[in-house]
Amino acid sequence: MCTVVFVLFVIVLLSPVTEALDNGLALNPTMGWLHWERFMCNTDCDTDPSNCISERLYMQMADVMVKEGWREAGYEYVCIDDCWPSQQRDAQGHLQADPKRFPGGIKQLADYVHSKGLKLGIYADIGTHTCAGYPGSLGYYETDAQTFADWGVDLLKFDGCYMKWTLLEEGYVNMSKALNKTGRSILYSCEWPLYEWPFHQPNYTAIRETCNHWRNFADVYDSWSSIKSIMDWTASHQSIIAPSAGPGGWNDPDMLVIGNFGLSHAQQESQMALWAIMAAPLLMSNDLRDICPRSKELLQNRHIIAISQDPLGKQGYRTLKVNSFAVWERPLSKSRLAVAVLNMQEIGGPRGLPVGTVPGWKICDPQCNVTLILPQYKELGIQALHSKLVIAVNPSGTALFTVTPSSSFEAHQHMDWHDTYITDKRTVL
Amino acid sequence: MCTVVFVLFVIVLLSPVTEALDNGLALNPTMGWLHWERFMCNTDCDTDPSNCISERLYMQMADVMVKEGWREAGYEYVCIDDCWPSQQRDAQGHLQADPKRFPGGIKQLADYVHSKGLKLGIYADIGTHTCAGYPGSLGYYETDAQTFADWGVDLLKFDGCYMKWTLLEEGYVNMSKALNKTGRSILYSCEWPLYEWPFHQPNYTAIRETCNHWRNFADVYDSWSSIKSIMDWTASHQSIIAPSAGPGGWNDPDMLVIGNFGLSHAQQESQMALWAIMAAPLLMSNDLRDICPRSKELLQNRHIIAISQDPLGKQGYRTLKVNSFAVWERPLSKSRLAVAVLNMQEIGGPRGLPVGTVPGWKICDPQCNVTLILPQYKELGIQALHSKLVIAVNPSGTALFTVTPSSSFEAHQHMDWHDTYITDKRTVL
Repeated sequence: MCTVVFVLFVIVLLSPVTEALDNGLALNPTMGWLHWERFMCNTDCDTDPSNCISERLYMQMADVMVKEGWREAGYEYVCIDDCWPSQQRDAQGHLQADPKRFPGGIKQLADYVHSKGLKLGIYADIGTHTCAGYPGSLGYYETDAQTFADWGVDLLKFDGCYMKWTLLEEGYVNMSKALNKTGRSILYSCEWPLYEWPFHQPNYTAIRETCNHWRNFADVYDSWSSIKSIMDWTASHQSIIAPSAGPGGWNDPDMLVIGNFGLSHAQQESQMALWAIMAAPLLMSNDLRDICPRSKELLQNRHIIAISQDPLGKQGYRTLKVNSFAVWERPLSKSRLAVAVLNMQEIGGPRGLPVGTVPGWKICDPQCNVTLILPQYKELGIQALHSKLVIAVNPSGTALFTVTPSSSFEAHQHMDWHDTYITDKRTVL
Repeated sequence: MCTVVFVLFVIVLLSPVTEALDNGLALNPTMGWLHWERFMCNTDCDTDPSNCISERLYMQMADVMVKEGWREAGYEYVCIDDCWPSQQRDAQGHLQADPKRFPGGIKQLADYVHSKGLKLGIYADIGTHTCAGYPGSLGYYETDAQTFADWGVDLLKFDGCYMKWTLLEEGYVNMSKALNKTGRSILYSCEWPLYEWPFHQPNYTAIRETCNHWRNFADVYDSWSSIKSIMDWTASHQSIIAPSAGPGGWNDPDMLVIGNFGLSHAQQESQMALWAIMAAPLLMSNDLRDICPRSKELLQNRHIIAISQDPLGKQGYRTLKVNSFAVWERPLSKSRLAVAVLNMQEIGGPRGLPVGTVPGWKICDPQCNVTLILPQYKELGIQALHSKLVIAVNPSGTALFTVTPSSSFEAHQHMDWHDTYITDKRTVL
């Protein structure tokens, strides 16, 4: 009887709240690299050939991703953002890459990226122009979708500039259909809710049926205040957005800026931990040709990536704010739980949070196995409900750990966790 | 004739705007270590013996300062902040150290610190209580000054909590006199203007006559937003506060938080560069027992410290804000100039500022010698007024360089610089 209940329960948990876009893609949060935050719209290849938006940049990133263990760690998509096209479509109305910066064209670039065992992403816009003023796709959805398919593109980031907001739904749905019609598997990354939120609450059921991931909030910057604003927005809207995440479709809090200039190492650990907890796409925007060893190690941390890519595919929640700590929890497969404890007090030294006070600690009744992942890996062994375990957390840093119930209590604990976690909808923290 | 003018001019430049406190101290901005930002009011020596406010902490810091090159780099004062005393004065009305945390007492601690070739700083408050609630000095100025002198204390940080603001001037002046009366050289660090600004513009002439340095603005935190707010406050009040700085008395923008948790390396470089440009006391608040090599190297950078300690003793100004760059300049001895260029755009990669556009570049007419100090040391050689030199600056980072006019033009350039810099009072940027 207990087993039957447990199996049914797991089926319910594994079913997304709504149906995902049925293209077989993004069954786990997308992993890769995207040029925008670090390289922006730098088109000056004469004076800055190493950093301008050109085929050379993506080929070099692809090379490094293979050589330096990024592909092996799971980072698969090499993604072009805005500023790649010519200012004009060709005589037949097709988008074309800037001929000076992409002399080989996108197809040749896609072939190169594929030859490395990686996938290529590209960027277009739902409206009359891209955000940086290049040709938009309005009126050309089928043409552009077919062009991307012909080139062998594997992902489309479809931006929302220069489009009347009331037409966003129709536009995003039509491009989704156009991509599907090509017959090529093209992962579809939307910005639909981001552009709709200023006017009304987006329809996440429709969004999930249409897109593989979707941006909700402002662009990420290379600063801790930007990362905090994204975490805060996500937590304050989690009851609306988190249920829509699941295999095939994900909320996208924007790029990882780890390895750049604006985050301390503690803050980089916080972004990595929280993006894993939020089941976010892990799209790095940095210079993989020149990244410090600690940032690389963090981005390639297999324990954090395992949380990000956990097959249960549930997005985590912020469950507690107390004493300048914020606690986030993500349910994992096999009745496990990932817990992130952020120290939001930006003064002083490391502070300890007694983990017995963490809500998800109920999973540890009567006992559980705890593995600390950040700030350093450590097996903390069997702990009990009233454990005196205290984990020190650096200011603006995060302690990330997993909790595994002792096996004989697994089914019971899973039910207990669900009861606390979903039914109570503790989302107002 | 020209020589006479030049000599007169140098005399004028070397004269502070007002008379400094005449105690022979702080002829250069104070350098040392102060516990507050990193260790705060941690009095829990039972569970956190390594980090609680106790004699052990200061003795360990003193040990490290000698062993690890800090003393040699110029860091001289080991400073106690709030939370060191007993909750009660003794039967004779003297302040006394908490007996559990300072079993040897402050005199023995001062002896220890002196035996290491260092100096000891202590903390008290002008009002009825310290900010953390320990006994204040109101009514005990002469007693406490004598106690500190008897103990062999070398610096007093005198906080402004729990005091009616209209009595601040009288109180700070009276404690200054009390310290002077002891006959011991005790550097006097005030917070007078910080507590007066909410009510009216402080009298910096009186402050400079009374204190060796003075806090103007809020406490520093371990975050880039805190550092930015201090820089912004300083720039927006520079016409009021900068002229009062000079040998014997300095504006104090609070502690260096380099080596902690909240600043990226680029941001740490910005704090170090700007604190040198601002002729600020360099009081580190970090854990010198456990600091990463890059932060240590930055804090001990002799080129930056040379700017901080430059004998001309003039505080720098923000002279330009353009294209998300902020340029700060500090006149140095021998007609040189230190220039800091901050990249305030918190996105993208390093950006280049053509240094020919920097206002102080006039010193380079017709030519000058440029030495880059941050982000890495490099002799950039002889440059000309219309030099095409472009220095790349990391996002939220700083390029710091010195400009030395070619010797044959030295006197002329000095005049030219003065003409532009002081006469025009370009302080509204």
